[in-house]
Amino acid sequence: METKKFLLDEKDIPTQWYNIVADMKNKPMLPIHPATKQPLKPEDLYPIFCEECSRQEFNSTDRYIDIPEEVRDVYRNYRCTPLVRAYGLEKALDTPAHIFFKNESVSPVGSHKLNSAIAQAYYCKKQGITNITTETGAGQWGAAMSYAAKFFGLELAVYMVKISYEQKPYRKSIMQSYGATVIASPSMSTKAGRKIITDDPNYMGSLGTAISEAIELATTVPNCKYVLGSVLSHVSLHQTVIGQEAKKQMEMAGEYPDIVIACFGGGSNFSGIAFPFMEDTLTKGTKTRFIAAEPASCPKLTRGRFLYDFGDEAGYTPLLKMYTLGHNFQPAHIHAGGLRYHGAGTTVSQLIKDGFMEATDIKQLDSFKAAMLFAKAEGIIPAPESAHAIAATIDEALKCKEEGTQKTILFNLSGHGLIDMTAYDSYLSGDLKNYDLSQEDIDKNLETILKLQQK
Amino acid sequence: METKKFLLDEKDIPTQWYNIVADMKNKPMLPIHPATKQPLKPEDLYPIFCEECSRQEFNSTDRYIDIPEEVRDVYRNYRCTPLVRAYGLEKALDTPAHIFFKNESVSPVGSHKLNSAIAQAYYCKKQGITNITTETGAGQWGAAMSYAAKFFGLELAVYMVKISYEQKPYRKSIMQSYGATVIASPSMSTKAGRKIITDDPNYMGSLGTAISEAIELATTVPNCKYVLGSVLSHVSLHQTVIGQEAKKQMEMAGEYPDIVIACFGGGSNFSGIAFPFMEDTLTKGTKTRFIAAEPASCPKLTRGRFLYDFGDEAGYTPLLKMYTLGHNFQPAHIHAGGLRYHGAGTTVSQLIKDGFMEATDIKQLDSFKAAMLFAKAEGIIPAPESAHAIAATIDEALKCKEEGTQKTILFNLSGHGLIDMTAYDSYLSGDLKNYDLSQEDIDKNLETILKLQQK
Repeated sequence: METKKFLLDEKDIPTQWYNIVADMKNKPMLPIHPATKQPLKPEDLYPIFCEECSRQEFNSTDRYIDIPEEVRDVYRNYRCTPLVRAYGLEKALDTPAHIFFKNESVSPVGSHKLNSAIAQAYYCKKQGITNITTETGAGQWGAAMSYAAKFFGLELAVYMVKISYEQKPYRKSIMQSYGATVIASPSMSTKAGRKIITDDPNYMGSLGTAISEAIELATTVPNCKYVLGSVLSHVSLHQTVIGQEAKKQMEMAGEYPDIVIACFGGGSNFSGIAFPFMEDTLTKGTKTRFIAAEPASCPKLTRGRFLYDFGDEAGYTPLLKMYTLGHNFQPAHIHAGGLRYHGAGTTVSQLIKDGFMEATDIKQLDSFKAAMLFAKAEGIIPAPESAHAIAATIDEALKCKEEGTQKTILFNLSGHGLIDMTAYDSYLSGDLKNYDLSQEDIDKNLETILKLQQK
Repeated sequence: METKKFLLDEKDIPTQWYNIVADMKNKPMLPIHPATKQPLKPEDLYPIFCEECSRQEFNSTDRYIDIPEEVRDVYRNYRCTPLVRAYGLEKALDTPAHIFFKNESVSPVGSHKLNSAIAQAYYCKKQGITNITTETGAGQWGAAMSYAAKFFGLELAVYMVKISYEQKPYRKSIMQSYGATVIASPSMSTKAGRKIITDDPNYMGSLGTAISEAIELATTVPNCKYVLGSVLSHVSLHQTVIGQEAKKQMEMAGEYPDIVIACFGGGSNFSGIAFPFMEDTLTKGTKTRFIAAEPASCPKLTRGRFLYDFGDEAGYTPLLKMYTLGHNFQPAHIHAGGLRYHGAGTTVSQLIKDGFMEATDIKQLDSFKAAMLFAKAEGIIPAPESAHAIAATIDEALKCKEEGTQKTILFNLSGHGLIDMTAYDSYLSGDLKNYDLSQEDIDKNLETILKLQQK
């Protein structure tokens, strides 16, 4: 009987994160200040982020960065995660491809988000910070941050988009169970929130508003910092524990991936599984294909442009050089809430620009169809986000079948879907649809940004 | 840094189930036919259950029963499960006790129920059965059975209590994702269901009704059998993989439990973790305490009587000699739906009668208080059922603190609570309460049964 699950011990949890920037010939472009157009330095971020994360954000020289023992100690609660050979899926597709997945869904909050939440909470604590704040849309990041804040004894305030707060009470209760304060955004606790409520008492909130509320809190409350769940390079850095473990586990399986696939929102999940393998590409010239699977309704990598743009809807962040659809782009309300982001991290953007990775777009109905096949074949109901990676994997495995080639495909199962069953309920009831985007719509949004660039 | 998680490899999945009945001096009393009062034989169950499960139900001689390779192969999708040293909980309680838990929540459906679902599906398939049927209340068992049926290519019809079907669409969607047909009970698909709907079109169903619909389907449709998720001895037998793994893992930790604790509904989860350790009590005289944690609102072990009673509300099953509150007992609507059962399995009942185990009752609010403490200390939100085991564990750990004794406590975390967040939402909103039962109410129900006994 062949091995299905490749397991590592607690002692195999990586001791360092891999900083791909050190190996990149073309470094990611530096963030610039929207008014002065000057490149930022780490200390420019200190008012918002903790100092260590700010430094990591700009670190382009250290290839490996030590993971503090206190962080590894909390990682031990769920890491190492299993690598699984998807025999069931291979059989269902009748493909000669060997399919593996890294199962990050076994984390206690059900997703990979904890890998960075724990690190960020630790660095805040170490700096003597007592309060942290963040925003959350659907709640995956908020849940992870609540868990991490509890372990390091930090008070956490989560601004949750009001419509999710009211329609998704479960994620709210998860955060509260871990002791976080969850505030429906817009709220009366910030100037930004109060203004919005005064203007429109019935406004149901947006991620942009929640971000501005959280940042306002972080910059006005003493001893309070802001934490973010994706996009930034230090978040991607923390996620590289995924790929480092997977490399060891692929070795146990006696294989090396020809293709590595992950779903793509802001990029940290993709970076987590891909970068440690891409290290081999950059330093040894191995030929692995890296595929980011993004939703067709939010196609910044496949149809966006490489521009300086704001990281948030409201325009409070520095300008970031990235693939973007425009910070004013309003993604359709697909169920993969974690992928509804207009841009991509600067590191990933540079890598795609330089041809080290590619992207594919997946339609909502195709993602759920893939999820159903996977659930029946492997027994795990994936998060709607992860379903995008599964759909891309199935596409590649079927190509192998057509071509009669036996490739090794690795994808990251970033989370399970047990807290997203409303989405499956809608899909099974036939209520879901695809959202088609015309190039005209995309270009219209990008015009705003182009004007901004030319200023 | 001390080890937190004790992991076993796929090859360590037990190769045999442990049949405690072979080691019991006083065997559990045989089920009897309600009309003839004659003890049943395995073949009397063949019209309802598959033959192998029927034989296992009566097997009192074979101490170990081989686990078919096909079953172990599916077990490999999630087993072995981790044993965890609960350092966080120990610290939160400031107790000298060493607390360990077996984490069955990592299964893809989030609970231990799969261990028997897979075995039952396999034996049905092996016998050439094509269709199976079962009932489900909250949906944990239905989800597990849907997963197992899919793996062995069986068609599954799940009768789900109508009120759960409408109020808990998530579990329904999980079952449907695995390909099961889910029918709100009462339904028009059976005589029993049609009669009830005709009598009262607005009736929202009960577990008793769902059981009778499922049994009617199994006995009237060709090539169809019925499967059950707890209470019966063969279900307990299948769950012993939990305790067998835990024994090996406790050995890795260099400890042996002084106390083993599990929550108690029908008994299969308790048996799963306890029986393999109880084997040492029965064969080597070791002195471990075994504690079943039941809800105070459904206290068959602490306040019920040892009688012959029906296994179901409607009185369709054989009479079983067990601790019971009376088959007509209506448990309060606590959120730990899996513990709302009036009786206990015959094997466990005999063991409690003979003093090999004890029981404690936990109030609903205490179970949620314990769950909150555990979530904050260990990072896992437990199923409301498992929270009862946690509350009992906390009680024992605090006793150790008072006495200044360092005992080793092991409990089974039978499932996570991520699909039960409505319950936590209610608790956090202050909407939950305890349900007090007077001895008078209990006795009133037992009178029915006593009359039946005397017939």
